[in-house]
Amino acid sequence: MYLPNIAIAGATGLVGRTMLDILKEKKIRYSSIRLLASSRSAGQHININDEQHTVQELNKDSFQDIDIALFSCGGDTSKKYAPIAVQSGAIVIDNSSAWRMHPNVPLVVPEVNSSSIPSEAGIIANPNCSTIQLVVALRPIHALFGLKKVICSTYQSISGAGQSGVDRLQAELQDPSLNKGKRIAFSTLFHQYQSNGRTDEENKMLNETRKIMDIPELDISVTCVRLPILGGHAESIWLETEKPIEIELLKRKFDEEEGIVFSDNFHSNEYPTPETAAGQDPVFISRLKTDPVFTNGLSMWVVADNLRKGAATNAVQIAENIISNRTSTL
Amino acid sequence: MYLPNIAIAGATGLVGRTMLDILKEKKIRYSSIRLLASSRSAGQHININDEQHTVQELNKDSFQDIDIALFSCGGDTSKKYAPIAVQSGAIVIDNSSAWRMHPNVPLVVPEVNSSSIPSEAGIIANPNCSTIQLVVALRPIHALFGLKKVICSTYQSISGAGQSGVDRLQAELQDPSLNKGKRIAFSTLFHQYQSNGRTDEENKMLNETRKIMDIPELDISVTCVRLPILGGHAESIWLETEKPIEIELLKRKFDEEEGIVFSDNFHSNEYPTPETAAGQDPVFISRLKTDPVFTNGLSMWVVADNLRKGAATNAVQIAENIISNRTSTL
Repeated sequence: MYLPNIAIAGATGLVGRTMLDILKEKKIRYSSIRLLASSRSAGQHININDEQHTVQELNKDSFQDIDIALFSCGGDTSKKYAPIAVQSGAIVIDNSSAWRMHPNVPLVVPEVNSSSIPSEAGIIANPNCSTIQLVVALRPIHALFGLKKVICSTYQSISGAGQSGVDRLQAELQDPSLNKGKRIAFSTLFHQYQSNGRTDEENKMLNETRKIMDIPELDISVTCVRLPILGGHAESIWLETEKPIEIELLKRKFDEEEGIVFSDNFHSNEYPTPETAAGQDPVFISRLKTDPVFTNGLSMWVVADNLRKGAATNAVQIAENIISNRTSTL
Repeated sequence: MYLPNIAIAGATGLVGRTMLDILKEKKIRYSSIRLLASSRSAGQHININDEQHTVQELNKDSFQDIDIALFSCGGDTSKKYAPIAVQSGAIVIDNSSAWRMHPNVPLVVPEVNSSSIPSEAGIIANPNCSTIQLVVALRPIHALFGLKKVICSTYQSISGAGQSGVDRLQAELQDPSLNKGKRIAFSTLFHQYQSNGRTDEENKMLNETRKIMDIPELDISVTCVRLPILGGHAESIWLETEKPIEIELLKRKFDEEEGIVFSDNFHSNEYPTPETAAGQDPVFISRLKTDPVFTNGLSMWVVADNLRKGAATNAVQIAENIISNRTSTL
């Protein structure tokens, strides 16, 4: 069995800590693990399987002997250190947006395009949280009926803004005078606008969905909204397909897919919410129905834990794939 | 000047109290005002213009000499008492869903169909909160370019479920063990499902939008979601029109419309939120852009205070129209 040396860059952040949880839950075996963070967090102690690890400051020598480096420490840090890690011989799985649209960097959701995972040192990009759960839901539909148009409104957890977002929400809930006019508590927020009138998050969803699904011309439009919710992102999705939709066939397909929990029990008023998804790895799909607003139309509600399947779980799944591929060629 | 005798049925509820605020703010003049509620709330005292009024128990004699009765006390009570009030000679403006789809009952948003307001005793229905802000935004678009398709995801305040909804949210924020699996705090909720796979709120939006806009065959699809937000409902909307959209013409039209505040300053990262709308009467429209997902496509973000324009303000506007019509025929 191939037992890699693993590094986690950004080990003390929300996603980094979730990566550690998931490595443990999935019982990923490795030779060694190295925890890395900025100078501010270096020196912290983190217990893994009853063994105390000290977080080291990320620097250019951090990746010696590392085989797989999981990065979740912001775009600028990834831009600087991912190439250094690759130079040292590592495969980098990067959770920032820095490399996602680079033409030579695969952007991977294992359920959709695991064949893009390289076997050599290099950078693999982990997609945006909202994109991951969207493409997991879209892939079986595209395979069966051919995607033509996608419309999506997101209901996103403030935890997508990291620990500081969660702290901000809690502070605002305690103090109604904080951040007047720009509150997330009891209100909604958009992400940062960009020059095309979309937000950064909306542009990511458009570009990344097209790249992962390999449909460069996909007609897709999204509105991304941050909310005072925790535990997961939700998405209200409409789509049009090339072929007529056979809804019972699609339900069976969703039932069979690994990584998807499909529920169809709206008669009992039960449906997945961010609370349902919290701490869970699957993408939850419900409220599936053909929709007369399009000729071959469908609508659905898709929820996933944005820190897990939307970030850490997807990254660890990519690492699992690499380990499994290398084990099979030993 | 015509000075009516006004009754408010449901005067102690969230919407009833907001109706009283708005009557005062709009300086509506009347001969007398009678506050009505269930036996549970009867006997409470409410100050209006420094005069103390005692809430009376709603019964079959409550509407003697009443000219205009504003109802906000639930569908069953409206079904029972609205005909009794009409029998007594009143015009009823009913905020429940009881009468909205009745073929002989006008369903009125003054910006859209004020000509449907009758001059004689009868029932006028006040539409669903999410529907009102939607049709205010759609009407100028329909007038200019002809509506063909509408897709809408709602982001709805829990105050749409009344004071008990707000109390529930506050209780859950205090106690994380409350209502496990069905929490609104930090999560999302749907309304009650109905047999067609849509929720009651979704069916209301479909049917009421078609009726108010007088487009019985409008292709419209909505997903309605309740959120732990206060101050207003938001809506993420896509639509397709018959004619090509002239976006600058539409912006000027929105700028001119009474009851609409249009903002187009996404470059400064400013946009209306439920916090913006809280305590305000207009419908706030922003993020307006042509959208390539449809041939003649448009998307926008629409926010309004669901207790005001979505309920109380719209009802009082209807009353204002009645008073103004009767004054002009005196």
